[in-house]
Amino acid sequence: MELIVKNGTVATAADVYRADVGVAGGRVVAIGESLAPTNGTRVIDAAGRYVLPGGVDTHTHLDMPFGGTVTADDWASGTLAAACGGTTAIVDFCIPAKGQSLADALGIWHAKAAGKAAIDYGFHSVIVEMPDAIYEELPGLPGHGVTSFKLFMAYKGALMSDDWTLVRALKQAKAAGALVMVHAENGDAVYLLQNELIAAGRTAPKYHATSRPPRVEAEATARAIALAETIGAPLYVVHVSCGEALEEIERARARGVRVLAETCTQYLYFTEADLDRPDFEGAKWVFTPPLRPPHNRDLLWRALANGALQAVTSDQCSFNFKGQKELGRDDFTKIPNGGPGIEERLTMVYQGVNERKITLNRFVELVATGPARIFGLYPRKGTIAVGSDADLVVWNPEAEATITNGQLHHRVDYSLYEGMKVRGRPETVTLRGEVIVEGGRFVGAPGRGQFQPRAAFGG
Amino acid sequence: MELIVKNGTVATAADVYRADVGVAGGRVVAIGESLAPTNGTRVIDAAGRYVLPGGVDTHTHLDMPFGGTVTADDWASGTLAAACGGTTAIVDFCIPAKGQSLADALGIWHAKAAGKAAIDYGFHSVIVEMPDAIYEELPGLPGHGVTSFKLFMAYKGALMSDDWTLVRALKQAKAAGALVMVHAENGDAVYLLQNELIAAGRTAPKYHATSRPPRVEAEATARAIALAETIGAPLYVVHVSCGEALEEIERARARGVRVLAETCTQYLYFTEADLDRPDFEGAKWVFTPPLRPPHNRDLLWRALANGALQAVTSDQCSFNFKGQKELGRDDFTKIPNGGPGIEERLTMVYQGVNERKITLNRFVELVATGPARIFGLYPRKGTIAVGSDADLVVWNPEAEATITNGQLHHRVDYSLYEGMKVRGRPETVTLRGEVIVEGGRFVGAPGRGQFQPRAAFGG
Amino acid sequence: MELIVKNGTVATAADVYRADVGVAGGRVVAIGESLAPTNGTRVIDAAGRYVLPGGVDTHTHLDMPFGGTVTADDWASGTLAAACGGTTAIVDFCIPAKGQSLADALGIWHAKAAGKAAIDYGFHSVIVEMPDAIYEELPGLPGHGVTSFKLFMAYKGALMSDDWTLVRALKQAKAAGALVMVHAENGDAVYLLQNELIAAGRTAPKYHATSRPPRVEAEATARAIALAETIGAPLYVVHVSCGEALEEIERARARGVRVLAETCTQYLYFTEADLDRPDFEGAKWVFTPPLRPPHNRDLLWRALANGALQAVTSDQCSFNFKGQKELGRDDFTKIPNGGPGIEERLTMVYQGVNERKITLNRFVELVATGPARIFGLYPRKGTIAVGSDADLVVWNPEAEATITNGQLHHRVDYSLYEGMKVRGRPETVTLRGEVIVEGGRFVGAPGRGQFQPRAAFGG
Amino acid sequence: MELIVKNGTVATAADVYRADVGVAGGRVVAIGESLAPTNGTRVIDAAGRYVLPGGVDTHTHLDMPFGGTVTADDWASGTLAAACGGTTAIVDFCIPAKGQSLADALGIWHAKAAGKAAIDYGFHSVIVEMPDAIYEELPGLPGHGVTSFKLFMAYKGALMSDDWTLVRALKQAKAAGALVMVHAENGDAVYLLQNELIAAGRTAPKYHATSRPPRVEAEATARAIALAETIGAPLYVVHVSCGEALEEIERARARGVRVLAETCTQYLYFTEADLDRPDFEGAKWVFTPPLRPPHNRDLLWRALANGALQAVTSDQCSFNFKGQKELGRDDFTKIPNGGPGIEERLTMVYQGVNERKITLNRFVELVATGPARIFGLYPRKGTIAVGSDADLVVWNPEAEATITNGQLHHRVDYSLYEGMKVRGRPETVTLRGEVIVEGGRFVGAPGRGQFQPRAAFGG
Repeated sequence: MELIVKNGTVATAADVYRADVGVAGGRVVAIGESLAPTNGTRVIDAAGRYVLPGGVDTHTHLDMPFGGTVTADDWASGTLAAACGGTTAIVDFCIPAKGQSLADALGIWHAKAAGKAAIDYGFHSVIVEMPDAIYEELPGLPGHGVTSFKLFMAYKGALMSDDWTLVRALKQAKAAGALVMVHAENGDAVYLLQNELIAAGRTAPKYHATSRPPRVEAEATARAIALAETIGAPLYVVHVSCGEALEEIERARARGVRVLAETCTQYLYFTEADLDRPDFEGAKWVFTPPLRPPHNRDLLWRALANGALQAVTSDQCSFNFKGQKELGRDDFTKIPNGGPGIEERLTMVYQGVNERKITLNRFVELVATGPARIFGLYPRKGTIAVGSDADLVVWNPEAEATITNGQLHHRVDYSLYEGMKVRGRPETVTLRGEVIVEGGRFVGAPGRGQFQPRAAFGG
Repeated sequence: MELIVKNGTVATAADVYRADVGVAGGRVVAIGESLAPTNGTRVIDAAGRYVLPGGVDTHTHLDMPFGGTVTADDWASGTLAAACGGTTAIVDFCIPAKGQSLADALGIWHAKAAGKAAIDYGFHSVIVEMPDAIYEELPGLPGHGVTSFKLFMAYKGALMSDDWTLVRALKQAKAAGALVMVHAENGDAVYLLQNELIAAGRTAPKYHATSRPPRVEAEATARAIALAETIGAPLYVVHVSCGEALEEIERARARGVRVLAETCTQYLYFTEADLDRPDFEGAKWVFTPPLRPPHNRDLLWRALANGALQAVTSDQCSFNFKGQKELGRDDFTKIPNGGPGIEERLTMVYQGVNERKITLNRFVELVATGPARIFGLYPRKGTIAVGSDADLVVWNPEAEATITNGQLHHRVDYSLYEGMKVRGRPETVTLRGEVIVEGGRFVGAPGRGQFQPRAAFGG
Repeated sequence: MELIVKNGTVATAADVYRADVGVAGGRVVAIGESLAPTNGTRVIDAAGRYVLPGGVDTHTHLDMPFGGTVTADDWASGTLAAACGGTTAIVDFCIPAKGQSLADALGIWHAKAAGKAAIDYGFHSVIVEMPDAIYEELPGLPGHGVTSFKLFMAYKGALMSDDWTLVRALKQAKAAGALVMVHAENGDAVYLLQNELIAAGRTAPKYHATSRPPRVEAEATARAIALAETIGAPLYVVHVSCGEALEEIERARARGVRVLAETCTQYLYFTEADLDRPDFEGAKWVFTPPLRPPHNRDLLWRALANGALQAVTSDQCSFNFKGQKELGRDDFTKIPNGGPGIEERLTMVYQGVNERKITLNRFVELVATGPARIFGLYPRKGTIAVGSDADLVVWNPEAEATITNGQLHHRVDYSLYEGMKVRGRPETVTLRGEVIVEGGRFVGAPGRGQFQPRAAFGG
Repeated sequence: MELIVKNGTVATAADVYRADVGVAGGRVVAIGESLAPTNGTRVIDAAGRYVLPGGVDTHTHLDMPFGGTVTADDWASGTLAAACGGTTAIVDFCIPAKGQSLADALGIWHAKAAGKAAIDYGFHSVIVEMPDAIYEELPGLPGHGVTSFKLFMAYKGALMSDDWTLVRALKQAKAAGALVMVHAENGDAVYLLQNELIAAGRTAPKYHATSRPPRVEAEATARAIALAETIGAPLYVVHVSCGEALEEIERARARGVRVLAETCTQYLYFTEADLDRPDFEGAKWVFTPPLRPPHNRDLLWRALANGALQAVTSDQCSFNFKGQKELGRDDFTKIPNGGPGIEERLTMVYQGVNERKITLNRFVELVATGPARIFGLYPRKGTIAVGSDADLVVWNPEAEATITNGQLHHRVDYSLYEGMKVRGRPETVTLRGEVIVEGGRFVGAPGRGQFQPRAAFGG
């Protein structure tokens, strides 16, 4: 065995128990009491620590062009930050340019990642338009390891696709064993409200929330579900932000529709009030869907606890406050939408364990096992089991820290969580048995991350 | 007094009581015990009869072009049939041609009706597309007595409008005091299912229902409601056919949204099984939304009884079986959508009173008072009260009949209700005090019907 | 005609129109334009006024013993106050003593009312226990004009009856055409919470609300409904106070259960915060169910508007602050439960018309037509129609006033509504054609009120 | 290591992977690739087999007196049958006699089990009445390893407790860290319906279902939940049989109530039609709640799949058809309520894996991990993890069989599942490392089972 993590408490989505974890060939080969190292076995002492599967973040935007600018983090900084936060695999959105084939877009995304990625990765293919060429290209994507298609129901005039595109995508996904993901907001309603607000001189960041009320998210959520139900295809709803949308998901599930959904870390902590922070600081919290009234945080935590939501992702999409967010000083619709969070995700969701909002098992499920399973990375990724990749996080449940941007590893000029006190931090991280983070410092190498072809959606 | 209806039992949406009804100047001027006729007063003896307000049918398509053909009934036959059935006012849908202004379309509809209409009438303006010219025309429509706009969320490539058109229509309607009406079905989903079915050789009428499942109606219903809620405008949903759509309406109402809705007579009697009648006869029952599984009839009756639905209309839209319905022998998508029913409406809904599904008050509310009030015809139309137009129906609750097409007055070659035994029939009908039906026979004159400008939506 | 109310605007549950109302023999005999008085006809000029049917209050407790004391108002003061407020009929609760037959209890209640009642009246029979004698007595009650039975699911050790009593009452009521009414709160849960609170020294009036949370009301509401549904009997839920209970009622109705419900005036105006008024004043607002968080008021108004609730009653049950409410200074469980409101009811509910929360028709329905119809007094009472009793209220919609206890006619030392400014007041009131209130002053005579046998529940 | 299960596929509630499982001291000590046996290590070859944690059945009635008779299976036959079916731990209901202390009752139950139990076991304490002595005894029960209290809301006059008992039990359970379980049916409504049916001569077994309709179960479920919510205690609902009850559970969970629930195997397979089997055979299917209309089976399977239900138990309560069930030939209320199933449980639930209704992980969760965790046996029981008891089942997913009573090991004269073809069977079973079943035959010894004190409810 090349590596043994000794004396730790292993936590999976189902179990918590004291055991050593032994690694050979980059995979877990033994879990047991008192595993014996041999010559050359590296031993990590995890006494007093949890041993967790590496986090899986299936919602990231690295090196992504958006509205004339590009995200602050590329594949080097983004994946390094992810690693330091305990995440060992991501799935990023590959967005084709107008008229471009999905294959060509994937080629570009492969190039963005190659030589830079510090952790393993995959791609979702975004569908913006659906000429016959794209329609016919879809069935072939799983053969390239891409088994999920993403559509935006908002961003009118840019990424927004219409229902005709959505039903055709669902049809092809169903046939190909792929999973359709939707950004669910009614883009037409948003556009009308934006126009009204700007015309009325309501240009401050807080009107971002006014222009995208919960009902607009709930409507699109219900619509995508209804279309998936009609086609007989499964559906995944990204970044659920409010009780109104949750209710649609739960109603659908109760009538037998196969619908899965995530929320993102930031919706668990912030509210629409953050958009009104002084000195245009609210712009840092401009992402979509917008932040909501406070009671929604409780509803989301409850949904995480009781299984109504299956994953927490970061929706990492970082823009600097200086020079990027500032583009919307006079018009909130011009603020680049998105925020950082790829590194803070595990730590922030773990605070829910401290506060007894979710169990440790559920934490593992939400940040690792669930997303891995849904997106075809499991059992290679997302759990600690004999045969799985040795993507391990040694987690110190007692370590205390205050989040400050200076100590984070992303390449953007703020953290949403600045100043928050936390307990529970990743100390050591391995990727396929190789130590890439030690004592919270990145000790791996860019480019060691590998593309992970993903299996068909398994239901 | 020019007319006294004596000895009858007056029924309104609230009350049932024995009284004479006295008419002068075309209006009701007295309701009382033993009203005394004077010289020249016409007296109708209504002993053993109900005296009801004339029916108001706010969903008709007379002389309407559709898919290369035109409805079998024009304003002469259609309104004559309506009168014989106890209906004294209709509101018909005025559909502009591509590129035509709404005003021009209204001119055409006025011309269709003029000189032919046997009863009073108004128009809803249909919005198919929303260039700036139409957008700017909308606020002026109430000035022409048109206070309701109708949009179709189905019929892709023909009447279907997108969400952008819908939100703009809602915005203008709200400002103008008009009411938006929607045909709620997701046209994209329907189109995909139609294509799949036809491609699979499933061309028979029964696949009409398969191509438009309840969820597709419920989705569009929920969407239109959410958009109206977002804009802050009221909404009217036409021809609700199933429990799934009803549920969306009731959920919205419980959260405070102002949503009104109707069903149509045919959904109370028939089921998807009727679409499978032999010898292509099922084509007679091809209208949209399609007929549903049987339990929906009970849900609709219950909704009529408990107030969840506010009106029953006919959706009169007649096509002959011979020569018109037959166009779709080899392809159900080519069957002209629609059926007759303008004459049978009151009689068929009244059967629910016999069967104690609804009260007599509720019957009056659903076929007269409700539609009149919602669409700005009340209190001129829709009730029996001092000052209201003397549009009266003397109704014999004991008259028994069997519906046969030969005895109906429309100009189409079938009745959906052929062979059904009924109890309760209109005997005498007055329009503004003038007797237009006597002993079930039309004794009025074409062209006596008047255009009724309608008041703004009152909430 | 002995009386003509001229020039007014008649409002019923369905209509609003200008007409004169003519009365002969105590009944309405004519409604028309310009009714002509003859010799001896009294004429009331109602120009600029509404003419409404007299209010019907089906939830009162006059001269009722409770916890060692007796209500402040008896049949003289209570019905006089009712008349001055525009109410011309009440139905009061007849509560048998332990071991007493219902017939004997009715005899006592008849004696309380006789010679004192200023308006017409009926009785509900309360069922506390169900020995065979009572069980066998129930079918006979409709023969005595008593067609409703009331059970209390709260007040453990006093009025509370168990489920066995309730199902037996439902069974007998169904057979007899009577309607079961329930006070819906889980008395066992309340008793445990009361004990815990008192033991913890939480004795102030505000803990009255803590001891009876909304879920406790919703539970009992759902239970009574389920039992009625199981037996196949209709059910009436009194004094619904919160959204949680409303939700149970609407769910049941959606599945076809015949359930009716009222709220009371005070729940439309006050909140749990009123229980915390200083100097023990909160005790004035101690009634059951308790006042709720503010949002419930909106839910109740909405339910009144959309038909989810069918009546607003007063639950008149007055205890003086001095000497009665004070009994609970050291223990909120000893505060006599109940408040006055029989006079303020119409005025306070009418404010909802001013604020466009409900229509004028709906106002009439809620305070008169609805309760009359549900409890078998209609069409004698509850509407203005030919043949109905001439119980009329001339209502001045523009009259403004400030509620002060000194100007009210009840015999209790406070009004819940003290200091509230209102617009819209009853000016003249007739009982069977006899003027009993004029210019807001009582001009009738005690004992002119008559017992009204009530018809079987009509569905 | 005393035992190695080699070459199998381990399945837990979260994972499925190929690994050997090593046992020492009765506990799992190693899970890994190619574990090496030493001298004396027993090796079980599980190639082509699943290795599952032993089933945990937390709802059994062994050696239980009921209505003048006693269950056919005692602790010897019952636990032997359980073992052969793959179950290695049960929790049985200890029912005190009238006036008996819970401690005394536990003494009797300990005596029933001692020397007979073939597998490990615990007890729930049933509460029938709540004199002060019982109330004060409750907090001490966890100290005796009993951390769950069961109350019956049905069986009027026998086991039924009232709401006052229930709220007091919830209060004590909350304080003591125990979990209250309820049999949720409204016993008063049932009793009335039973009386009506028998009086009407409806005595056949099928009327058992008529006398206990779904609403009666849903009502009591909602009530118990509301009371638990009011007290702030968690709740466990046993044997959920229908969608109506499920809906109450899901509504409560959505508002944040901590409610857990199980169904039982038989509700997944049978319907009310089985109660009407000829020759009084229907009596075999008389248990409570009764069997339901067919669609409920789908709802229950869906609830198992999506997490709305947390466990499947047997409700083993066997009575012979001959001599016991026959007691109710002339009166269905006299049929002893209950059926066998302790042995068939795992096999029958596993068929849902074959049919893709639930995943293999979910199967393990439902029959082992879930019940163990909820009732404080986890992590000793209910999973395969380092440190857990080596209660293992070697499961042959390909073994096919037809269920016949002759091949089962219980001591009752029928199986509900007689004649059903199944695939997937337990072959080898170990209890704390000791092989007790081999090739489907019991090779253990009565009395080797140990009492398992259970931990407090963990949330």
